[in-house]
Amino acid sequence: MNIREEVQKWIDKFHKEYKFKFEEKEITLEDVKRAIEHTNLKPTATPEDIEKLCEEAKEHDFYGVCVNPCYVSLAKEKLEGTHQKVVTVCGFPLGATSTEAKAFEAKKSVEDGADEVDMVINLGLLKAKEYEKVYEDIKAVVEAAKVPVKVIIEACYLTDEEKVAACVISKLAGARYVKTSTGFGSGGATVEDVNLMRWVAGNDMGVKAAGGIRSFEKARDMMRAGADKIGTSSGVVIVSENR
Amino acid sequence: MNIREEVQKWIDKFHKEYKFKFEEKEITLEDVKRAIEHTNLKPTATPEDIEKLCEEAKEHDFYGVCVNPCYVSLAKEKLEGTHQKVVTVCGFPLGATSTEAKAFEAKKSVEDGADEVDMVINLGLLKAKEYEKVYEDIKAVVEAAKVPVKVIIEACYLTDEEKVAACVISKLAGARYVKTSTGFGSGGATVEDVNLMRWVAGNDMGVKAAGGIRSFEKARDMMRAGADKIGTSSGVVIVSENR
Repeated sequence: MNIREEVQKWIDKFHKEYKFKFEEKEITLEDVKRAIEHTNLKPTATPEDIEKLCEEAKEHDFYGVCVNPCYVSLAKEKLEGTHQKVVTVCGFPLGATSTEAKAFEAKKSVEDGADEVDMVINLGLLKAKEYEKVYEDIKAVVEAAKVPVKVIIEACYLTDEEKVAACVISKLAGARYVKTSTGFGSGGATVEDVNLMRWVAGNDMGVKAAGGIRSFEKARDMMRAGADKIGTSSGVVIVSENR
Repeated sequence: MNIREEVQKWIDKFHKEYKFKFEEKEITLEDVKRAIEHTNLKPTATPEDIEKLCEEAKEHDFYGVCVNPCYVSLAKEKLEGTHQKVVTVCGFPLGATSTEAKAFEAKKSVEDGADEVDMVINLGLLKAKEYEKVYEDIKAVVEAAKVPVKVIIEACYLTDEEKVAACVISKLAGARYVKTSTGFGSGGATVEDVNLMRWVAGNDMGVKAAGGIRSFEKARDMMRAGADKIGTSSGVVIVSENR
């Protein structure tokens, strides 16, 4: 497999064929709830904050919680016996640690109980078009984790061509999802980015929208644009404003 | 050793004895140069950016460079045969990964050529007063790295008492420096924080001021307040404005 050729093929296809598509399809509160990964990745989050997060995820029947690696065990314990998933992050939020460190971190988080791992792509190497290294970085995490891996492309820093490249490489490396944003960059999810990512992902990968999603309308629009998972710390607000 | 008692002792001492001390002592451009860790931790930094960083560090005879783990090998190669140090980060910038992941990351970075490791303290556990866990987290990195470790306390998120606790625990765990900020938090270095940190550190640890230091005057003031290392991405500007 020639990664560079595959990326170029998709970039050419993007320039020729891609059109933004936004269907005003019905998205219910239940749909949004089931898509929400209830998130607290604040560096100052305490064990108490994470316990509260887990309680809320159960109460509102969200898809799961998204927490930093140091809290995976705690979240797993608090969600035992439920169907809520424990999602964690890796190489977060800069994506600039060594491949070996990312792979180890992912493996350790899964041992601690993580059901899914959201890793950050190496943005600098992507921008330098070091596609082979970007691929190896993702593949190492996919292989170490052995659970579904989402690749956060941090779209706010990327050109459209780089977004396409990021998604293509993620797909080739075995990622199960691409995710728009860390929530720590200069921008969050946009319907434009979600739509572009869905176009590359097709039916092969899921798309998670994250960053700045604080209302039902915004979450719904992300899903209309092609997202099937929503990362947000405002899950309770999103649910409550619709009661 | 009872960590909790030691922390409490210092907090009591802080309330009774601490006074901000700012000496208007002579700090030359040479002093500042020798203190600068020329920094590029941007998630989008390319190999080319890091090569430039290393060139500048040599040209201006800075103390060293500070780069993300994925660029440690490259920086080491570019600085071979010079006395400029390669500094990297760990658990950066949130400090919320697992202790095992931090230790592995540090070890790998040192294998790649890092001379010093700047790790981020676990802020959530610090706030929850889980001092034993915060201590173990730092100690694990100190033991894995076997090179000087700086502990970034991310002062912008801490109360004065938490700043004292962070420095005391860092000292007990064998850190060689405490560092004010990641540069990715809500605030950077202040002379007040540097001075407080120096008071706890005494002669046992160094103090690195980082985050928002973009002029000679600011760097000088940090050193007057007690800093002996300056982390900045504006090293070239700081040097040039004084020519």
